Amino acid sequence: MGNLHLIADEIGATLSVPVNLWIARVSAIANAGPESLVFIEKAAGLEAAIASGAGAIIAPPGTATNAKPLLLSANPKLAFARAARFLKDGTHSVYVDPTASVAAPELLGRGIAIDQYVVMGRVSVGDGTVIKPGCAIATGSSIGRDCVLHPRVTIYAGVTLGDRVVVHAGAVLGADGFGYVRDPATGEYIQFPQQGTLIVEDDVEIGANTTIDRGALEETRIGKGTKIDNLVHIGHNVRVGRNVVIAAQTGISGSTVIGDGAVIGGQVGMGDHATVGQGVIVGSGAGILPHKKLHGPGQVFWGVPAKPLHQHLKELATIAKLAKAPTASQSEPRQGRPDPEEGK
Amino acid sequence: MGNLHLIADEIGATLSVPVNLWIARVSAIANAGPESLVFIEKAAGLEAAIASGAGAIIAPPGTATNAKPLLLSANPKLAFARAARFLKDGTHSVYVDPTASVAAPELLGRGIAIDQYVVMGRVSVGDGTVIKPGCAIATGSSIGRDCVLHPRVTIYAGVTLGDRVVVHAGAVLGADGFGYVRDPATGEYIQFPQQGTLIVEDDVEIGANTTIDRGALEETRIGKGTKIDNLVHIGHNVRVGRNVVIAAQTGISGSTVIGDGAVIGGQVGMGDHATVGQGVIVGSGAGILPHKKLHGPGQVFWGVPAKPLHQHLKELATIAKLAKAPTASQSEPRQGRPDPEEGK
Amino acid sequence: MGNLHLIADEIGATLSVPVNLWIARVSAIANAGPESLVFIEKAAGLEAAIASGAGAIIAPPGTATNAKPLLLSANPKLAFARAARFLKDGTHSVYVDPTASVAAPELLGRGIAIDQYVVMGRVSVGDGTVIKPGCAIATGSSIGRDCVLHPRVTIYAGVTLGDRVVVHAGAVLGADGFGYVRDPATGEYIQFPQQGTLIVEDDVEIGANTTIDRGALEETRIGKGTKIDNLVHIGHNVRVGRNVVIAAQTGISGSTVIGDGAVIGGQVGMGDHATVGQGVIVGSGAGILPHKKLHGPGQVFWGVPAKPLHQHLKELATIAKLAKAPTASQSEPRQGRPDPEEGK
Repeated sequence: MGNLHLIADEIGATLSVPVNLWIARVSAIANAGPESLVFIEKAAGLEAAIASGAGAIIAPPGTATNAKPLLLSANPKLAFARAARFLKDGTHSVYVDPTASVAAPELLGRGIAIDQYVVMGRVSVGDGTVIKPGCAIATGSSIGRDCVLHPRVTIYAGVTLGDRVVVHAGAVLGADGFGYVRDPATGEYIQFPQQGTLIVEDDVEIGANTTIDRGALEETRIGKGTKIDNLVHIGHNVRVGRNVVIAAQTGISGSTVIGDGAVIGGQVGMGDHATVGQGVIVGSGAGILPHKKLHGPGQVFWGVPAKPLHQHLKELATIAKLAKAPTASQSEPRQGRPDPEEGK
Repeated sequence: MGNLHLIADEIGATLSVPVNLWIARVSAIANAGPESLVFIEKAAGLEAAIASGAGAIIAPPGTATNAKPLLLSANPKLAFARAARFLKDGTHSVYVDPTASVAAPELLGRGIAIDQYVVMGRVSVGDGTVIKPGCAIATGSSIGRDCVLHPRVTIYAGVTLGDRVVVHAGAVLGADGFGYVRDPATGEYIQFPQQGTLIVEDDVEIGANTTIDRGALEETRIGKGTKIDNLVHIGHNVRVGRNVVIAAQTGISGSTVIGDGAVIGGQVGMGDHATVGQGVIVGSGAGILPHKKLHGPGQVFWGVPAKPLHQHLKELATIAKLAKAPTASQSEPRQGRPDPEEGK
Repeated sequence: MGNLHLIADEIGATLSVPVNLWIARVSAIANAGPESLVFIEKAAGLEAAIASGAGAIIAPPGTATNAKPLLLSANPKLAFARAARFLKDGTHSVYVDPTASVAAPELLGRGIAIDQYVVMGRVSVGDGTVIKPGCAIATGSSIGRDCVLHPRVTIYAGVTLGDRVVVHAGAVLGADGFGYVRDPATGEYIQFPQQGTLIVEDDVEIGANTTIDRGALEETRIGKGTKIDNLVHIGHNVRVGRNVVIAAQTGISGSTVIGDGAVIGGQVGMGDHATVGQGVIVGSGAGILPHKKLHGPGQVFWGVPAKPLHQHLKELATIAKLAKAPTASQSEPRQGRPDPEEGK
């Protein structure tokens, strides 16, 4: 719940009329109520927003109406996101459930909530952090302030989370990396030590069922402000920079480095020891070879193996053109059509 | 346990001889016992089925023997599957474990089972539903009749499941979608509100460790009868139609729409706002670009980017032919060979 | 903690000087202390290792120094891995937490640890096995000696694990396979029975959030010594040989067979009923068509669909060359660039 004046200050918007209105939440125009704040990106949307049940509207500069109070902002979508964050603040309860197993209560901060069946070794937890049911956090880990761990997150021993980190359900942080040494005499694999650590900096968000492995001997590190989607895999010794975005199901092999501000699509595969430079954009489904280096802020790479976008598009166009030529041969290999009845 | 007459009625088969036989289970021919029902797809398999320990055999019309009772059906495999379902019915126990944490017992139906360490907020549960150990279900969610939630399923607040929904272990339903607004001044990402909901209709099955996100402001919806394999990712605002099949590790980006009866292979990637029309078939590993529309019931699409199958096959054949030509150049880029010893 | 003489014996190395030194752990050179063992692969690294705080150094034959004791081994990295394994041995506690729900304590071996909120049906557990918080193991399963199940592993009914099996957090073993029969009259899918089993042989390691399904009517089997990374999917009836390595996010469809010693990269997709022969190497991101057979120990396959490496490289080179030719056409299809703001 926030007063409209306060919200305007918080999100850097200008209030169109002096009004004493309390807002409880942000909403879609379709289901807005009197305590809802909605947003429009263009003046064209104003009529629908006025017709809605919303109490107030975030709108671009130049929009004008007497029907409802406006919060004028040059970037209405960003202002809306900030308002949502502001309205969520201050809702943390103070509670440790009696069924939670906490080895070291003296390491817990103030204003935290630890829910049912959470199991924690000797772990320090900062003020305002919420740990939801069924999380398991091993000894020696450290969790910052105002974090949210959704249900059934697992954190192995000795992992460090900064402040305001959000981890979605089922994510696994700090498991052993995938490193083995093959015994040439027997063909057997013996695990190489996986006793490094994992450091997750402030403001990182980690998606559901994502896995991030600890370093082999050193550390794996996720930089401040980076956002990681569901079912992503990040291997041992990987270093991800600040404000990186990584979409769902991408996999990053050991020791690869990703620079600040890079944008990585979904289902991208990166070989080990690769480098994705600062600000580089990697298209969905691209495959980056081991030891490959991609550089250039704002440069887009795509394809398998990944190459500059214009080059990959040229190759796609060349193939399409040649296949259309009358002399192109044709054959009918069995393709990857899914068969839901297989395996029976 | 079911009488063979009853089973014949239930699965729409004709019993070859009047016999009073009780069947406990369906089995493979290799390990069938006297209470087992087996099936053959062609008359050629009859001898082996007779030689087995099975009590009765589902067989195609025209099959004849006096050795064992037959259930004659035009689609023996389908009849076998129906028999399995029938034999499983009526086995639900009635039980709420004392360690389960249930906020609102008055919302629970009859004939349900809630196992150890389940944590439920104010959640309504329909008759006959089974919730296995360690599930966490947040307040405001609703679960229909005769559902099965396997261990450690997480359901976020406000999610709706229909009747006869099966969710396998570790699946996460209704987590925040992956939507952020970048602050151009700082490069930081701020979460766009992810406060919509997720609706899973009747008869849907969801695989182990699959993740389906809630809508941003509206809903994500999975249509009646749709079957989803393991480790699938479905983003916010996606709408999947009825009787769709989605194989393992496929990822579907935000706001994409999939029509009724579509068949989606494994490891398919779909960009945001794409459309897969009714009855369309997408081959495994295909990549569908954002905003792309694929239409045509029974039409097969394959490749990255996905195109009609015949076109993609022609392109593959063209490349293979050109590479075989004596003038084709050759080089040896480092390829994606896995190195189990990397990262050390 | 191990005496250096004992470690030398265990890892097959020669101690350079008679010395009575106790070693607690293996370490990176950067953070080694007096109880640490480090390793160098070439004599060139000796100076840095001597300058470190390490108590002893594993080094290749021919290395010589009086500064610190050396363990001379023809394969220092393998020796280091063996030392790590040896030093970890013997640390298993003996403990069943009072909050663990164990249906059949009489089936538990000696020297085991069962942690908080574990739920086990009638399950036999071998000596020395550790089961961490929140695991759920259904009736009829069997777990060997000296296994480690990390937190929140789910094992369905009737699964068998051998000795020294390690399962990382969130993995799901023995869930129903993805097999349905379509009712042509209604378009609905009915589950085909998924009542086979899953057998995991000795010394297998399984990554975090990986899923391995049970057989439909027979078994799924993972051979001795095989190592499986995070977020891998293995379908019903699959048979994986011995000492196979499977990197992260690879998916294997039903009834596929993988021979001993094969090496499978990350994000590989295999169709159903495919065969990967003994010792075959499959590059990351490759796609193997249903029913395809790849053979030849040491042979490398890559691409979609997967073909011999030299052939795939020739095709890539051919495309690149043709696209560079001045007559190559060009177009600008919308590509798979990720948009973190989509779906709003």
